Amino acid sequence: MAAPDTPSTLNELQTPCMTVDLDVVKANCTRMIERAQGLGVGLRPHMKTSKTLEGGRLLTGGSCSRIVVSTVAEAEFFASGGFDDITYGHIITQDKMPRLAVLAQKLKRFHVFIDCEEHIDLLEGEPLVPPGRMWSVIVKINTGYNRAGINWHDETLVPLVKKVRDSLWMDFEGIYIHEGMCYDKQGEAVKSTADEQIHRLMQVSELLSTHDIKCHTVSVGSTPSCSLPGKLMSKVTEIHPGNYVFYDVQQWQIGSCKRSDIALRVATRVMAHYPQRNELIVDCGFTALSHDGKGAMPNGTWCLIEGCPKLKFVRISQEYGVITTHEGSAMNYENLPIGKIIYLIPYHACATAAMHPVYYVHSGENIVEVWRPNRGW
Amino acid sequence: MAAPDTPSTLNELQTPCMTVDLDVVKANCTRMIERAQGLGVGLRPHMKTSKTLEGGRLLTGGSCSRIVVSTVAEAEFFASGGFDDITYGHIITQDKMPRLAVLAQKLKRFHVFIDCEEHIDLLEGEPLVPPGRMWSVIVKINTGYNRAGINWHDETLVPLVKKVRDSLWMDFEGIYIHEGMCYDKQGEAVKSTADEQIHRLMQVSELLSTHDIKCHTVSVGSTPSCSLPGKLMSKVTEIHPGNYVFYDVQQWQIGSCKRSDIALRVATRVMAHYPQRNELIVDCGFTALSHDGKGAMPNGTWCLIEGCPKLKFVRISQEYGVITTHEGSAMNYENLPIGKIIYLIPYHACATAAMHPVYYVHSGENIVEVWRPNRGW
Repeated sequence: MAAPDTPSTLNELQTPCMTVDLDVVKANCTRMIERAQGLGVGLRPHMKTSKTLEGGRLLTGGSCSRIVVSTVAEAEFFASGGFDDITYGHIITQDKMPRLAVLAQKLKRFHVFIDCEEHIDLLEGEPLVPPGRMWSVIVKINTGYNRAGINWHDETLVPLVKKVRDSLWMDFEGIYIHEGMCYDKQGEAVKSTADEQIHRLMQVSELLSTHDIKCHTVSVGSTPSCSLPGKLMSKVTEIHPGNYVFYDVQQWQIGSCKRSDIALRVATRVMAHYPQRNELIVDCGFTALSHDGKGAMPNGTWCLIEGCPKLKFVRISQEYGVITTHEGSAMNYENLPIGKIIYLIPYHACATAAMHPVYYVHSGENIVEVWRPNRGW
Repeated sequence: MAAPDTPSTLNELQTPCMTVDLDVVKANCTRMIERAQGLGVGLRPHMKTSKTLEGGRLLTGGSCSRIVVSTVAEAEFFASGGFDDITYGHIITQDKMPRLAVLAQKLKRFHVFIDCEEHIDLLEGEPLVPPGRMWSVIVKINTGYNRAGINWHDETLVPLVKKVRDSLWMDFEGIYIHEGMCYDKQGEAVKSTADEQIHRLMQVSELLSTHDIKCHTVSVGSTPSCSLPGKLMSKVTEIHPGNYVFYDVQQWQIGSCKRSDIALRVATRVMAHYPQRNELIVDCGFTALSHDGKGAMPNGTWCLIEGCPKLKFVRISQEYGVITTHEGSAMNYENLPIGKIIYLIPYHACATAAMHPVYYVHSGENIVEVWRPNRGW
């Protein structure tokens, strides 16, 4: 239920603000749960996009278990909210060790990432209590995306995993990749790209098994590859997409979703008309939309304007957006009176959601819930 | 004083986080206060960059009066914090009228912006109490920046101002511009560009005086133009820069400040080394730095890395930054061990500050205060 002072319909919203279509979110979550079941793989949804307990409940089909998070603050937030199997999906660092130890001691299951010996030293320097309680360690693998992770063909990989296995303070849980390069592909090419990454990860798993080391977890994920699964997706133990809770214009461009699967919008309002320059201003700046995607869309803008295919954002500052028409066609100001709410469909949902202290969650025109996301580190 | 559980020195910070050099902020604030005094103009600092009461006190030299804000939430935050003369520096909209009326009735002075007749209708539709209490109206002028504002040579400008003057519910306070085009200039060109804008605004003031309408406020401002004031800056009644509280790389490029005047940094930590690709990763993604400035700096990055002139950001995602060297020189990993804190100097302080729930304020290496900024609308 929304709080008593929350507007009851979208038309009553103060702008700018972020809206979430609850029915679309539910459908997105159900579709991924069913897809994972069909593939015979576990689903560990990433919380980094919605960062809300409500989103987490829908993403896990109500189980409130088996999630991955992007910050320690998120891990603490979901742990306090009753989630009991959490992967901290970020390389560990010295400063976070005491907080990570609290989580490892409190939660039923809590997994951390390492990719080099220095990270093992951090874990050995922070033994858990009671004695015998073990860190559950996932080795992050780089199969080509070149962000975090030890290279899949690195000769130090097996010695690294053996060091984890042989430690008094650690259990080796498995291996994990993010096939982020799928964001640069479309449609069928997403499938073949992800399959290549999965093939490399499976080779790591097979190599480790020749050393009698079992990967309980072989985890892959990105919203493009999990929305468009290739032939090898069923070979892993779990998938960990996240963005699909909301989807966005970027995902629509990739082919991960249909336009109607995008659940997140930014509501903004026409503030003034400037017919002399064929422009109008709205009360949405970068603090409500983010700068993400600038330059990435073919029309030179970085969001879509719902129901207004001829309009585009041309400039953005902290609290103002300037809108004009494509190719100089005349603005139809009568359809866009001062005060009218218009909806922006963001390029990147994760970046836009991070700008908002509150999400107004609606079913049709009715606001049915208010979600307050976690923030910080 | 910092809270008891706050780290006492920079080295103890958990990363990523935002740091503010208090001595630099104080010097930036004092310099602008003295510049305004020297010019014989009022100073109405913009709160949109720091959005903190502590920043506001320093920016106003302790008077806690005469400020401008970018959102209604900011106006309410500063009003609750004891600030008594606030300009809402954004075009008014229907949805905010009840909250604006509360502020207008509560504060000693509260000014709002309009730029067309529809905005006058909004004010007349929300009369203040007690009867006789007047809206203080500033007409936003567009002298060439082409964001909000009525064109300085628009023939409807005088009739618009007369309608304000003649209303039973409004006082005409004056005129206001933001000479944002100064951001595209450097050094002396900032001065001549701003002088051209001020010259146009003074023509509006003179035109109105021929109609017996006095502008009590003739307000101009941007951090570049107020840091590099031209000959005409002394002719206005007030200036309203804001970014200078922190300054940033963009302002340094423009020539508004020296490198040592930049007070804001993002502290991040080396997470892992990847010598095979001459890269390392840090725990600062777009949620801590923002995407602002991407592509705007000549080296293809969008922040500076303090003390590491040979390093640059090459990729950024939600919680990871990838760093390499300029022109392929070999990374000196020994100087950048895993766990080391490095400091990023942001391209745009307003965008970076908006990403942080807390600012760690330091004097030298000691953390002396924690500031919590306002957020939302």
